[in-house]
Amino acid sequence: MNIGILGGGQLGWMTILEGRKLSFNFCVLDPNPRAPASRIADMWFHPEQVREFRDHCDVITWEFEHIEEGVIEKCFDRLATPPRAIEIKWKRSEEKVFLSELGIAIPDYVICNGGDLEREVKNFGLPVVVKADRLGYDGKGQFLVKDEEDLGFLCNSVQRNEVYVVERLIDFAMELSVIVVRSREGEIRAYPATENLHRDGILIRNRVLTSFEGLKTALAVAEKIAHELSITGLLTVEFFLTEEGRLLVNEIAPRPHNTGHYTLDGAITSQFENLVRALSSLPLGMTDPLGFSGMVNILGTPFDSLPLGEILSIQGAKVYWYGKEPKPRRKLGHVNVVKEKEEELLDDLHRIERFLHSTSGVLS
Amino acid sequence: MNIGILGGGQLGWMTILEGRKLSFNFCVLDPNPRAPASRIADMWFHPEQVREFRDHCDVITWEFEHIEEGVIEKCFDRLATPPRAIEIKWKRSEEKVFLSELGIAIPDYVICNGGDLEREVKNFGLPVVVKADRLGYDGKGQFLVKDEEDLGFLCNSVQRNEVYVVERLIDFAMELSVIVVRSREGEIRAYPATENLHRDGILIRNRVLTSFEGLKTALAVAEKIAHELSITGLLTVEFFLTEEGRLLVNEIAPRPHNTGHYTLDGAITSQFENLVRALSSLPLGMTDPLGFSGMVNILGTPFDSLPLGEILSIQGAKVYWYGKEPKPRRKLGHVNVVKEKEEELLDDLHRIERFLHSTSGVLS
Repeated sequence: MNIGILGGGQLGWMTILEGRKLSFNFCVLDPNPRAPASRIADMWFHPEQVREFRDHCDVITWEFEHIEEGVIEKCFDRLATPPRAIEIKWKRSEEKVFLSELGIAIPDYVICNGGDLEREVKNFGLPVVVKADRLGYDGKGQFLVKDEEDLGFLCNSVQRNEVYVVERLIDFAMELSVIVVRSREGEIRAYPATENLHRDGILIRNRVLTSFEGLKTALAVAEKIAHELSITGLLTVEFFLTEEGRLLVNEIAPRPHNTGHYTLDGAITSQFENLVRALSSLPLGMTDPLGFSGMVNILGTPFDSLPLGEILSIQGAKVYWYGKEPKPRRKLGHVNVVKEKEEELLDDLHRIERFLHSTSGVLS
Repeated sequence: MNIGILGGGQLGWMTILEGRKLSFNFCVLDPNPRAPASRIADMWFHPEQVREFRDHCDVITWEFEHIEEGVIEKCFDRLATPPRAIEIKWKRSEEKVFLSELGIAIPDYVICNGGDLEREVKNFGLPVVVKADRLGYDGKGQFLVKDEEDLGFLCNSVQRNEVYVVERLIDFAMELSVIVVRSREGEIRAYPATENLHRDGILIRNRVLTSFEGLKTALAVAEKIAHELSITGLLTVEFFLTEEGRLLVNEIAPRPHNTGHYTLDGAITSQFENLVRALSSLPLGMTDPLGFSGMVNILGTPFDSLPLGEILSIQGAKVYWYGKEPKPRRKLGHVNVVKEKEEELLDDLHRIERFLHSTSGVLS
């Protein structure tokens, strides 16, 4: 069976690593032949060859959202999941409207043009987060507006005719996410919730929440969205848990997710293997956690500067290195940790962050 | 770092799958470009290109023993383990002499020419196993001689000038093996012992022995051999446990081993990852088992006839398919199973065998 992946990043790379075990063939569409998934694919295609790519694939999934509309159109009849799941990710406003109309609790928001931003924000009330409507990732295109000074500064730089989403700044107690996998027939299995720590919009580390009161609510939200979008594969839902204990959806991702990388070592079946099982109509695997596990991202540190010996001396630590060119703040790899005791996990995640901190300078 | 593997079989394939996580590059030397490891290697070399292969590798290991002396010679200065470890595997007689001289308990044996076989076996006493001196595998080149009729039959077909090893037939209570990994600096970590079930010389299934009285003895033997051979990487030692509780070494293998495939899912660090860590001078990983785990080999069943849905419906079952051309009795893949309870493991291993039995006809 030939599985097609739109995008050649690390999410596709790990999907191939896991799917290889069943000897599926993988075709990757990406402009860069040296991208992580392109490099290890059975066949790599440039986006100009999208028709040949489609003809080679029995089923097609995506590993990121920045996909040209023309590519989606040409792959339409082989897509595992209807394109609506990705189309609503092209504009933040559409994602907000989709979630609101589905009755999902999200932070209050207003949508406006750059030219009206100052007036709209003043009506809405500070502090807010202003996000460019066009898809950003890892914190790009997001502006924290705490006071009128920030607002004045931002309004001088925005495009008058661009659309922006103004969101209430949530003073959250915790950021968390859940990942579900859905089969073609609509069976759903859910991974446990993880607590996620971001800095400047980039995920720094996360860990499995072994007990979390709101899990049932969070999973009900994820299942509702997965069914609504007819997902075949993975859906991630990121939440804010407010100080009052409310769960508000921050954003969704219809694909493997950085907060599920721990599943490669800390779950019976990884998110990537379950994606491949869903795509190939095989029974879904168990999503139960193994031990206590978490993950730390490797951001910007070149391989030669990685404190690999120190990290791998930590019992139960596994390093994944995507083979990408180092750039500051770029996600270049991650470290999974699985421990028998929860206290040990927390200690080790902090130790790994300190090891990486001393080499990247990002995590200060 | 470029890691070279002599041999393109499934042991190399799994080494690459695991080593990919750290983005090491793999060069494979094998006559067949479609062999499992050749197919997914970064660079594949035909044995005629052995010099180019060697020049591309920072370190070289092997994944089988049938390697031409000329190849070993040309790779000599890059080999992780001195060639003696593989040379003693070229003739069964040399392996026996090596183990005897090291003071390791092995079944009684005698070495003789085909022309003297009848006389020697009669002196030695029946029943015996007669093995061709030149390396066989998976039961090839082995003859069970229970009585004089068997002996007469065998003596009519042996080569007069070929060497044979005559071994006392051991009426064992159990066959088991241990795998150790040894770093370049001589640090050793040991996996737990597994109980192995062979039929007609081929491993059918195995499982981790959660408690085994003789473990200390078995590990002492494995460590002694690993140090003696200056192994950098893996060493497997297969034992007979006699009815009287004695441990006799059946054979050794200085490489990843079929009885350690379970470690991909049933150990914190797989045998393959630990091999890669040893080769690249990274700290060795934990060898502790996860849950209760075992493995069933897939022998001869073509992929399209695999009861994949049934097998993967078993919670905690993982299928590995090597992508080789099906032949009767050929090892084409395996199924790992990890369970929380030991009784469930045994039930599931038997169920998987029955599923496979109905499609391969080998396991009757």
